[in-house]
Amino acid sequence: MQRSDSALPMTLQRVNQAAQGDFVATLGGVVEHSPWVAEQVAELRPFDSVWSLHAAMFDRIRRATREQQLALIRLHPQLAGREASEGTLTDASNAEQARLGLLSLSRPDHQRLQQLNDAYSDRFGFPFITAVRLHKGIASIFDELERRLGHGADAELAENVRQIGEVLRGRLARLFGTPLGWLSTHVLDSVAGAPAAGMAFAISVRDGSTWERVGQGVTNDQGRTDRPVLVDAMMTRNVYQLEFQVGAYFRDRGVPLAALPFLDQVPVRFGIDDPDLHYHVPLLCTPWTYSTYRGS
Amino acid sequence: MQRSDSALPMTLQRVNQAAQGDFVATLGGVVEHSPWVAEQVAELRPFDSVWSLHAAMFDRIRRATREQQLALIRLHPQLAGREASEGTLTDASNAEQARLGLLSLSRPDHQRLQQLNDAYSDRFGFPFITAVRLHKGIASIFDELERRLGHGADAELAENVRQIGEVLRGRLARLFGTPLGWLSTHVLDSVAGAPAAGMAFAISVRDGSTWERVGQGVTNDQGRTDRPVLVDAMMTRNVYQLEFQVGAYFRDRGVPLAALPFLDQVPVRFGIDDPDLHYHVPLLCTPWTYSTYRGS
Amino acid sequence: MQRSDSALPMTLQRVNQAAQGDFVATLGGVVEHSPWVAEQVAELRPFDSVWSLHAAMFDRIRRATREQQLALIRLHPQLAGREASEGTLTDASNAEQARLGLLSLSRPDHQRLQQLNDAYSDRFGFPFITAVRLHKGIASIFDELERRLGHGADAELAENVRQIGEVLRGRLARLFGTPLGWLSTHVLDSVAGAPAAGMAFAISVRDGSTWERVGQGVTNDQGRTDRPVLVDAMMTRNVYQLEFQVGAYFRDRGVPLAALPFLDQVPVRFGIDDPDLHYHVPLLCTPWTYSTYRGS
Amino acid sequence: MQRSDSALPMTLQRVNQAAQGDFVATLGGVVEHSPWVAEQVAELRPFDSVWSLHAAMFDRIRRATREQQLALIRLHPQLAGREASEGTLTDASNAEQARLGLLSLSRPDHQRLQQLNDAYSDRFGFPFITAVRLHKGIASIFDELERRLGHGADAELAENVRQIGEVLRGRLARLFGTPLGWLSTHVLDSVAGAPAAGMAFAISVRDGSTWERVGQGVTNDQGRTDRPVLVDAMMTRNVYQLEFQVGAYFRDRGVPLAALPFLDQVPVRFGIDDPDLHYHVPLLCTPWTYSTYRGS
Repeated sequence: MQRSDSALPMTLQRVNQAAQGDFVATLGGVVEHSPWVAEQVAELRPFDSVWSLHAAMFDRIRRATREQQLALIRLHPQLAGREASEGTLTDASNAEQARLGLLSLSRPDHQRLQQLNDAYSDRFGFPFITAVRLHKGIASIFDELERRLGHGADAELAENVRQIGEVLRGRLARLFGTPLGWLSTHVLDSVAGAPAAGMAFAISVRDGSTWERVGQGVTNDQGRTDRPVLVDAMMTRNVYQLEFQVGAYFRDRGVPLAALPFLDQVPVRFGIDDPDLHYHVPLLCTPWTYSTYRGS
Repeated sequence: MQRSDSALPMTLQRVNQAAQGDFVATLGGVVEHSPWVAEQVAELRPFDSVWSLHAAMFDRIRRATREQQLALIRLHPQLAGREASEGTLTDASNAEQARLGLLSLSRPDHQRLQQLNDAYSDRFGFPFITAVRLHKGIASIFDELERRLGHGADAELAENVRQIGEVLRGRLARLFGTPLGWLSTHVLDSVAGAPAAGMAFAISVRDGSTWERVGQGVTNDQGRTDRPVLVDAMMTRNVYQLEFQVGAYFRDRGVPLAALPFLDQVPVRFGIDDPDLHYHVPLLCTPWTYSTYRGS
Repeated sequence: MQRSDSALPMTLQRVNQAAQGDFVATLGGVVEHSPWVAEQVAELRPFDSVWSLHAAMFDRIRRATREQQLALIRLHPQLAGREASEGTLTDASNAEQARLGLLSLSRPDHQRLQQLNDAYSDRFGFPFITAVRLHKGIASIFDELERRLGHGADAELAENVRQIGEVLRGRLARLFGTPLGWLSTHVLDSVAGAPAAGMAFAISVRDGSTWERVGQGVTNDQGRTDRPVLVDAMMTRNVYQLEFQVGAYFRDRGVPLAALPFLDQVPVRFGIDDPDLHYHVPLLCTPWTYSTYRGS
Repeated sequence: MQRSDSALPMTLQRVNQAAQGDFVATLGGVVEHSPWVAEQVAELRPFDSVWSLHAAMFDRIRRATREQQLALIRLHPQLAGREASEGTLTDASNAEQARLGLLSLSRPDHQRLQQLNDAYSDRFGFPFITAVRLHKGIASIFDELERRLGHGADAELAENVRQIGEVLRGRLARLFGTPLGWLSTHVLDSVAGAPAAGMAFAISVRDGSTWERVGQGVTNDQGRTDRPVLVDAMMTRNVYQLEFQVGAYFRDRGVPLAALPFLDQVPVRFGIDDPDLHYHVPLLCTPWTYSTYRGS
């Protein structure tokens, strides 16, 4: 199997079919110096999406003991720290820190970052980790550092674990050439004041002047879906349309409707401009009204 | 020209092209014993819809002097009153009152209606008029009579004029074989907190598995449309879809949007179960959220 | 009685109690050269608000015959026209046109206005009327003139009548020293998909850290109120709070509620920044959700 | 220290101040036969709420290794199983299963439950766990069992862990005499299409005809709050009012507002009928509109 620095993206099929050793060789590096994460999920193959692979790997990290988590955190380099100066960053870390200019900071910014990093390490006994991909510049990293310096050690341990999950998400997406984002929905029944469970829906993508159906599902007890509505290669820069079976949902629950209901199949059309982001598109409805919005 | 009691519905084309005398002969009877209303609108031909014809005729009634309006009101029969007993109702009145069973009331209901009618006439000096088409039974007529007995004479004069307009709407619809209802919309820009003026939209009707565009327009300064979105023969028992150009609207106003906007063409799909009713389908929107509902 | 150009505002009490002649002397001038409007409403006294007085006067204008309306329109001066040049504007017109700088336009603007005015008069046979109070400058008057030049004569007759109503509203407000605006509401029941009729509400104004109740009411069959919620002296620059009895409304209609309902008394708090404007504050609700907005 | 079966509820102060051994003696039993959970969180004292104590204990369970979690799951008795027949249930389990009548099922129900339980154990190698408190009767337990039988082993391991967390929540609430529920909020800025970060709010409880402020906060980067808005003893059966500083929020972000903004302090008033439930009360807003609802 090829490594992530090869020209062609890795495919899910190849990692699903790889020998255990090749699997670990391919994925061992996506969590900083910690091939054990890949080793522990090898037995869970096949994965049906990069998103599922991420979920499994991150689950292992979250479920690790406090000591394992601390050890993992301590394997991460400081932002623009010693490893960067000495050129001993992993390729992945190097690329991530370079993107934001962290490897070529102005002297005052470099000093300030050093001071904040040190204050953080002194206070908590482990380094500050953040997914640089989610930052637009050094300013928001300063903000985050200062804010997190005010937290407790337990909260920061948990926050660092979350950040490692985000870093992992970015590295897997780059390795497999898939987008980072996903689409979720959430349907609320405003007659009952409760999640709308069991509402069928379909999702289509615009294809010229027509629509191609790319998925369908039914809401679960929380009015959500067990898996993302769109993920991986289905998540493209395009216009999508969700169609919710609002009429059938209320009819099944005995809510009186007109013979030809006012609302029956409710389309919600929206553009995904950046497939690397999470899009949450909820629906609040009665048989007579609905609202939708870009949620979070 | 044929009269309204003929088998075939009248057509707008025929009344538009009729000689003045024929026009009045055809339409003279739709306002109780008052051909002057038809006479005054003959010169405004051609009408592009039954709805426009109604608007013109009703405008003449509203614009009549107080004395003319009082005279017109006094030409109307009491509900289930003397003319009904004596069989001297106009054909139109007879059909309307028969539909609700007003000509075959139980004795107690008949007495109660008589007492309320008399109380009303005594109090205001003119008969109580209501569009029986909008009632579901004698109970709601009793309710309305009791409620209106509490008003002032001026308010009741105006209310009777409105009811004459509704009666007129029903008679014209029956004469021309068109539905009574219409579709309107109203768009509010929730970023500006003001009507969304100049938003383009289209309206399509479902035709099997495709959509046929049947109209389009642009919102006016009030975020509404100058004429109904659907009216006359376009108003059918079917599923319709409005498409609002929300993206273009906000782009034109300088509101920042993504290159591929989250909301661009916003579809609102709804069923018209009863084309004899008014459907009001508003849209409240920002570039990131919208809501719609059956309004009034 | 004093004229409107006196220092002190007129009071409603005084016009309600005035002799017929004094009443007409006071109000005769508020409609351009047309004391007949005041004469016709004198018998309707007492008025309980300036808003009611306006409604009565404007009703007489709307109900006037086409010929009377045309005559009234022709009594109005052209904007920045001959009467302005010759100094023969009524005091009221003079003040209104001066406010917008219409009496001291640049030469090109004056010429353009003259040309558009003339085009309008040539096309329709009557002058263009607009309530200059609703304009922010000459540009929007040009816009309106060009837009209205594209209409039909009947529509423009009706539009001029509406504009006369707006001019009248401004003059009455100035005469009595009351604001021009008013507050309305509209409640929709999103469970039933219909207006919420019979919902009680109260309106309070902020008074330091407490609230003073200044009104209350019940929605009518259209989910609206027969009269404005606030008008005249009640309409001040202040923070108001509507409280809707949403819980009682749904309980009365048999909609199941918790013993302690999620929504019961629903407060909607909003600022009235400009009491000369119309504020429309609707409520869309179920027992579990509501939305409100500045409507129109 | 007293045990949980004493008459008086335990207090947070007492467990915060207890010696390590007493702490474990008191809390060791709330997770089935697993005092290690209590042992591991003893060092994190003091806890500022029962909710925080629950979060810490559940965090230890989630973070346990797969083997530890499996062992913990296997310590749980089958619903209405052998331990119930033999009278060897823990006091806590006994009370929970008795409440729903699981210890006195009809013979057919008992057989069906036994069969489903066995099928589940055979399939996954560990018993089915559910928080019986969240069920209304045996029917919904059958539903859940059948649904979960269709899942994969990994999903069911995770689901059982979540159910143990819910069981734990119920036992802690009973031990400390606090409600199980909590209040959360989420604010979305519909102008930006993003979470409203940094919006200040306050929460008050109705006290007769006045309001007593019981909390305040500022939304975080996700437009949510780091901790519940209400929890523990603050969560009572009462009417509450959130007040969001919508005006200040938009002003700080440079969105143009009126000098006296239309929306400034936005009150959202709602009843908490059952303090053992989670109440989620979001706000979607622009400077001109907002909506709120009972979310999930």
